Amino acid sequence: MKGTAAAVTRQLDQLLPKAVGPRGRVVDAMRYATLGGGKRLRPFLVVASARLFNVRDPRALRVAAAVEMVHCYSLVHDDLPAMDDSDLRRGKPTVHKKYDQATAILAGDGLLTEAFAVLADSATHNDSDVRAELVRGLAAAAGASGMVGGQMIDISDDRTDLDLDGVTELQRLKTGALIGFACQAGAVLGRADQAARDALAAYATDLGLAFQIADDILDVESSAQELGKPTGQDEALHKATFVGLLGLDAARKRAEELVESASSHLERFGDEADLLAQTARFVVARKK
Amino acid sequence: MKGTAAAVTRQLDQLLPKAVGPRGRVVDAMRYATLGGGKRLRPFLVVASARLFNVRDPRALRVAAAVEMVHCYSLVHDDLPAMDDSDLRRGKPTVHKKYDQATAILAGDGLLTEAFAVLADSATHNDSDVRAELVRGLAAAAGASGMVGGQMIDISDDRTDLDLDGVTELQRLKTGALIGFACQAGAVLGRADQAARDALAAYATDLGLAFQIADDILDVESSAQELGKPTGQDEALHKATFVGLLGLDAARKRAEELVESASSHLERFGDEADLLAQTARFVVARKK
Repeated sequence: MKGTAAAVTRQLDQLLPKAVGPRGRVVDAMRYATLGGGKRLRPFLVVASARLFNVRDPRALRVAAAVEMVHCYSLVHDDLPAMDDSDLRRGKPTVHKKYDQATAILAGDGLLTEAFAVLADSATHNDSDVRAELVRGLAAAAGASGMVGGQMIDISDDRTDLDLDGVTELQRLKTGALIGFACQAGAVLGRADQAARDALAAYATDLGLAFQIADDILDVESSAQELGKPTGQDEALHKATFVGLLGLDAARKRAEELVESASSHLERFGDEADLLAQTARFVVARKK
Repeated sequence: MKGTAAAVTRQLDQLLPKAVGPRGRVVDAMRYATLGGGKRLRPFLVVASARLFNVRDPRALRVAAAVEMVHCYSLVHDDLPAMDDSDLRRGKPTVHKKYDQATAILAGDGLLTEAFAVLADSATHNDSDVRAELVRGLAAAAGASGMVGGQMIDISDDRTDLDLDGVTELQRLKTGALIGFACQAGAVLGRADQAARDALAAYATDLGLAFQIADDILDVESSAQELGKPTGQDEALHKATFVGLLGLDAARKRAEELVESASSHLERFGDEADLLAQTARFVVARKK
């Protein structure tokens, strides 16, 4: 995972070259938002799933970088004062604190746009059918039926009153959609059959939910110093969470069940999928 | 132009169906941002240039709608308090006034994303090469080397000190890039040869500049009631403009020259291009 994280950072560095002149500022902010660390979980899922279908790493890394651009764009916009109003991200000032709000809005817009440019480029795959499918998949994950819709629910007035189904639906859109695309992208690159795609989709659904439950637990149990971002936010804002609705013990148990379920969907891939199974375990065991 | 505007509005209405539940709010805002009128100049350029290559209107209208989504997303984000802080657009409250800032940010993000989804969809063209090229073209026009970069320059501290070259470069990115893509899209859909594409690119460059000079003139000469948006903003913010740098008469003369030059690039298309030549004249003669 560390090796992939470093490779993705190099890829992002290449895909977002510095620019001169007054527009250099927004490119700097795009680089600041993407090159400053993070677990790189989503890129890792792209690379690990691509390996199941013998896709070469350079191709997978381009898609991985595009997925990370979209993840980082969403963090930049979600952190804005009009949204979650967060000052700290990955242990550093958020983009609007480091630069300003206007630059943060534009940097997010630029990253979202650049992600599609990367996917549509012939260097990502020689078959334009594959590239068009990747663009459609990323757009579906990022748009109003995915991340944008999830964030809209997350900041809505009804947010405090969500029941377990409501929180599950919210997280399916806000976090699950992009994790789902990350797991599917390898299958698209490798032109895998439908059964393989379905298995990865099922794995991703369980993984995404387990990831979010673990996030809710960390928000309660961890410190800002450990996480590199503010904690206790959900409770302070009276947001309904898995931990709040289930209790800590039941939430932990549910996350473990989801890890088992996620792994069960990988059986058809045999030992080749050990990395993805380990990733599911990592997602709930992580401390940040 | 009115007929195309109505057809594009219908297309946008279909491509952005209402959604239920709490995420319905962001879809409502996306619809509010796109369905509320406007000249629909960019969509018209897509349709008119596509006709040169006998591309069927339904295909051109999908691309036209995608271009308008990107145009409207940029207006929504540019109008935000952290950017131009505008309350009025197309004679109505801007999206963040009608909804709120968070919804406006998300609505813009959603429109930008949906534009790429539309271009990558097989309904836009049966050839995925064409779809991938459209995605690349739109991303290049919208990103940090296009609209995002242009807006960054437009709100930069150096904005007041730009000379004529600086203002030209700013507007080439901020306005010219998407107008350029709109004119090229028809050629991409129609798989036109390079000479035809070059001619349309040259037309678009002149047209985009003429459009912006006309905009600068309207900002000085028109009222908010006529334009449906605040006027006199450039002068109030001490922004360098074509009118400020050239004077009103020379700016008007320059716009007329650009219209002539734009039309001259259309000669190879014969009478078929009359609509585009008329559009260039409209762009400088318009009163809003």
